[in-house]
Amino acid sequence: MKESLTIVKVGGKIVEDESSLQQLLHDFSALPGYKLLVHGGGRSATRLANQMGVETHMVDGRRITDKEMLDIVVMVYAGLVNKHIVAALQAKGMNAVGLTGADLDVIRSVKRPVVTIDYGFVGDVQSVNGDSLSKLIHMDVIPVMAPLTHDGNGQMLNTNADTIAGETAKALADYFDVSLIYCFEKKGVLRDADDDESVIPEITHNDFVQYVEQGVIQGGMIPKLENAFSAINAGVKQVIITSAEALGKHQGTVIKG
Amino acid sequence: MKESLTIVKVGGKIVEDESSLQQLLHDFSALPGYKLLVHGGGRSATRLANQMGVETHMVDGRRITDKEMLDIVVMVYAGLVNKHIVAALQAKGMNAVGLTGADLDVIRSVKRPVVTIDYGFVGDVQSVNGDSLSKLIHMDVIPVMAPLTHDGNGQMLNTNADTIAGETAKALADYFDVSLIYCFEKKGVLRDADDDESVIPEITHNDFVQYVEQGVIQGGMIPKLENAFSAINAGVKQVIITSAEALGKHQGTVIKG
Repeated sequence: MKESLTIVKVGGKIVEDESSLQQLLHDFSALPGYKLLVHGGGRSATRLANQMGVETHMVDGRRITDKEMLDIVVMVYAGLVNKHIVAALQAKGMNAVGLTGADLDVIRSVKRPVVTIDYGFVGDVQSVNGDSLSKLIHMDVIPVMAPLTHDGNGQMLNTNADTIAGETAKALADYFDVSLIYCFEKKGVLRDADDDESVIPEITHNDFVQYVEQGVIQGGMIPKLENAFSAINAGVKQVIITSAEALGKHQGTVIKG
Repeated sequence: MKESLTIVKVGGKIVEDESSLQQLLHDFSALPGYKLLVHGGGRSATRLANQMGVETHMVDGRRITDKEMLDIVVMVYAGLVNKHIVAALQAKGMNAVGLTGADLDVIRSVKRPVVTIDYGFVGDVQSVNGDSLSKLIHMDVIPVMAPLTHDGNGQMLNTNADTIAGETAKALADYFDVSLIYCFEKKGVLRDADDDESVIPEITHNDFVQYVEQGVIQGGMIPKLENAFSAINAGVKQVIITSAEALGKHQGTVIKG
């Protein structure tokens, strides 16, 4: 029987609010078994860019990562946010290590090819080194992963944190019984965007397709759920979308494979 | 017999110049045996502070690390500089991992007490976790250490890179035959500051005391040599001060215990 591993992905909003972050890390620390945390970046990068007088370029609501913006996200995600979380976990007696994809070569990606839009230094995940991560985890180390990868040729690449969480969960499913928990600001996938209590308790891929057609599920929730279904279909034991406040409380939306 | 480990400390100036850095990493990769790299920060932090409109406070030529400046050095040292080096080493097939003192709890420090000057968030090294580092190194991992530590209570602290290199060498002397190489812009400790060829090939502590009295050795070279003597007297097998260009060429100043 495989041992259990819980992978928690936490978004930028929670990371940026000190009391929310401390509460989340408290709840995360209390989870049983092996653990791994993936964090987003949040708006700190945009704030720093503004303060530096660097313009943020957006196309269709998505950030373009030019050279200057890449330096900024590396500084904010791998530096400020990651080390803040690692030091906070160490203060709770959790032996955390901060990682980007370049560290221990844990995640390689390819620079997203230009089709119609050049997203710049953005990486699409190619491979996750489950062996390296598994060794660390078995040493009772808690990997804290920033949303950055590398291309194997010395280039860092900005990478979506939901995808990192999903791909890491898939790669570690060979080594552990993996539960993947996406924490965000809502209590789960909502049937009615205006009613925070309208959480859909379980969702199949057929439900998902229908909800998207009906416009019930839209925007950033679509790629998040695509990552979630991809993980559950690749051997991840459990995938849940829930709020940071509900971490460890078995609430939220359960993804059914 | 213990296996050999080479610890290389490289200063900010080399790190900031792309071709110098690539040459250094090339030479570093070619060193035999286990390896560990400690990097300084350089002036990128000051540049970023300027760009952000954050004032750099200096007292007696030393930077005061207030809250804003701490965020900046964490971003630049642990983010930009560290990940650039790690990704570059990975591109050379070296399995590097970037670490601050908080990661894996490798270096704890105490915030420097205020005597006459409040240096702010600056840490004096208290303990180095030789066991954790040794385990990583035995996994053929190359730790790349940024000049930052933590206090165990969640606070990151800005820490001198020469000291980190010296204390890490001392802690690892129980596990390896450690060679510690300080790389900087000169060819070694100079007898005449105006003559780059006047390298002192060997220096004892008595020589050092005399050179300081005579004013031959001054400024930043004094604490660097104090770290070097402290290391050689604590069981580090070899300590050398040399230029980045001479790495691996057995040149420079050898510290005699």
